[in-house]
Amino acid sequence: MTSPFANRLGIEHPLIQAPMSGSTPPALVAAVSNAGGLGSLGAGYLEPQAILEQAAQIRALGARTFAISLFVLPDEFDADMVAVAKAREQLDALMASEGLDVRTSVPARWAPRFSDQFAALCEAQPAVASFAFGVISPAQLRELQLRDIYLIGTATTVAEARAWAEAGADAVCVQGAEAGGHRGTFLHQPEDAMIGLFALLPLAVRALSAGARDVPVIAAGSIMDGRGMLAAEILGAAASQLGTAFLTCPECSAAAAWKQDLLQTEEHQVTTIRSFSGRAARGLRNRFVEAMPEPAQGLPYPLLNALTAPLRRAAAAAGRGDLLSEWCGQAAGLVRPQPAAELVARLMHEYRLARRTLAS
Amino acid sequence: MTSPFANRLGIEHPLIQAPMSGSTPPALVAAVSNAGGLGSLGAGYLEPQAILEQAAQIRALGARTFAISLFVLPDEFDADMVAVAKAREQLDALMASEGLDVRTSVPARWAPRFSDQFAALCEAQPAVASFAFGVISPAQLRELQLRDIYLIGTATTVAEARAWAEAGADAVCVQGAEAGGHRGTFLHQPEDAMIGLFALLPLAVRALSAGARDVPVIAAGSIMDGRGMLAAEILGAAASQLGTAFLTCPECSAAAAWKQDLLQTEEHQVTTIRSFSGRAARGLRNRFVEAMPEPAQGLPYPLLNALTAPLRRAAAAAGRGDLLSEWCGQAAGLVRPQPAAELVARLMHEYRLARRTLAS
Repeated sequence: MTSPFANRLGIEHPLIQAPMSGSTPPALVAAVSNAGGLGSLGAGYLEPQAILEQAAQIRALGARTFAISLFVLPDEFDADMVAVAKAREQLDALMASEGLDVRTSVPARWAPRFSDQFAALCEAQPAVASFAFGVISPAQLRELQLRDIYLIGTATTVAEARAWAEAGADAVCVQGAEAGGHRGTFLHQPEDAMIGLFALLPLAVRALSAGARDVPVIAAGSIMDGRGMLAAEILGAAASQLGTAFLTCPECSAAAAWKQDLLQTEEHQVTTIRSFSGRAARGLRNRFVEAMPEPAQGLPYPLLNALTAPLRRAAAAAGRGDLLSEWCGQAAGLVRPQPAAELVARLMHEYRLARRTLAS
Repeated sequence: MTSPFANRLGIEHPLIQAPMSGSTPPALVAAVSNAGGLGSLGAGYLEPQAILEQAAQIRALGARTFAISLFVLPDEFDADMVAVAKAREQLDALMASEGLDVRTSVPARWAPRFSDQFAALCEAQPAVASFAFGVISPAQLRELQLRDIYLIGTATTVAEARAWAEAGADAVCVQGAEAGGHRGTFLHQPEDAMIGLFALLPLAVRALSAGARDVPVIAAGSIMDGRGMLAAEILGAAASQLGTAFLTCPECSAAAAWKQDLLQTEEHQVTTIRSFSGRAARGLRNRFVEAMPEPAQGLPYPLLNALTAPLRRAAAAAGRGDLLSEWCGQAAGLVRPQPAAELVARLMHEYRLARRTLAS
């Protein structure tokens, strides 16, 4: 049961903890890596200094092989400040009517500058870098290669998987439509990129093994247990990436109310939401989503995301899961709260058991 | 490698050819059943007499164990004839502008009467009856049980799977969001029932094994090869149901243009379409869908379906795939045109090979 992917990275298991930006503190990343998987620091919303600090913390916790993950975005964003002002009124009014004492404010910057984040990633020099929302440039590819950083691109269609392979990715992670949070779509409208993993995975594997080089495909989207990992392997995956499964770990910084609500999730209540961030993301349909089904004033990502960030922090602090972005995949109902190291061991035990059962 | 599901039905393989109403002539059903799978006559649009005739033809071709499948619908439908007249104008104008010499007409009946279809099914007495769009009544369940007909219900969410188990189904077929054509959704809005098979299958298996009796779950939705069947089994499926995979068989009555277009399918062009039938169905985005993104005059199913039927027949006869309802699942790009018996043998060979590879 050796895994070429795991061997290449020098890790024990072909198992990646997904980079859920905002919910992957160093303790979670290190716990997964120390247990033989690949922990991922979701650094999409971190300033360069924080990336360096958290990478150092992960290493201080004993982890050697881990990933840092970024969103490929422009460095600067233009904002229609009239729309921003109107959106703030609308959001503030909603919070007030829900009894939450918090107001929006205009941030100093709408998002960290990607080029600065990228430079920090290079300086931190993790074993693996992964990216979503777009492909990196040839110059950036060279920077990673110079430092022997393994590159994983995120794709939600076969065309996107091909684009990453052509951009030089060492592996491509395909996210099925089932996947939680913001998915990596960049070549299509979000509604055209809702491909179930059962379809996307074999299609992408066929496409990426037909090219000049055979690019390994990592499967993501509602893989929650060892059976799911084995099923993904049978469909051609070199490794499995699990996000939601790690959300209920004590090391994960997701709000307590969010973790609690995941335990009661019914799959038909996990929906596509644009009104927290301006970009389609999968999560629980709650009070906020019902009160605000569309993005305030149609504000785009990451502007709306920056505006709602303090509201979501306040909702988390107040235990108001119903006002919080409760991202999760469609199989969230299968979460099993337990420490990350135990979860990794359990996943691999289930995987081996499922495999042995088949063989008998 | 014995399968409890196959053993119970006395068939060789846990493999069902999906009941794709309108595209499953007796020759296809019999070929699959004679090859050791379970062929299904999609009888949703057949009048009672045709159901009896086609069942007799299937038997005349040597098949013993097969399924007949119906849509659970009311017997009668009310129509707003003003809206119908306006919709006809709109549809006729589109066909004229596309150079297709065909007109809509008001059918004698909007759809066959379900209770009459059900009576014909009972008379035909197939080994298996399967249903979509709703659950059958306790009285209908008794009619099936009296005749020892095995009952399969179709579900697209866990709640629907539970509803079928409570209604007495012997097995429940869960259709992932990837599945082609009209899906069986009946308790939810279509957009809330787009659950990927990778999530839906293990969730449904858990729900249906927790009840008073352990109800087998059949997996459907973008299973295209033997690896897919094995992956579904690992996620808990008792059997796999494949539809799109059989569309390109010579025995399948799908139009030649439709079969041809499937060979070039890209998964992001497989979309949800309401404008052929009034009910959400998955198929290829083509000229008709682009010209008419919404159902004419908002006509509901099955009214719009009946109005467009002659148009689609004419489009098929004229080789105009671009004006035809080209239903297919998201993994349609993986079709392999070949006779149904060869395809069944190939699927089972791949399944055994994948299993053996894992064991080694």
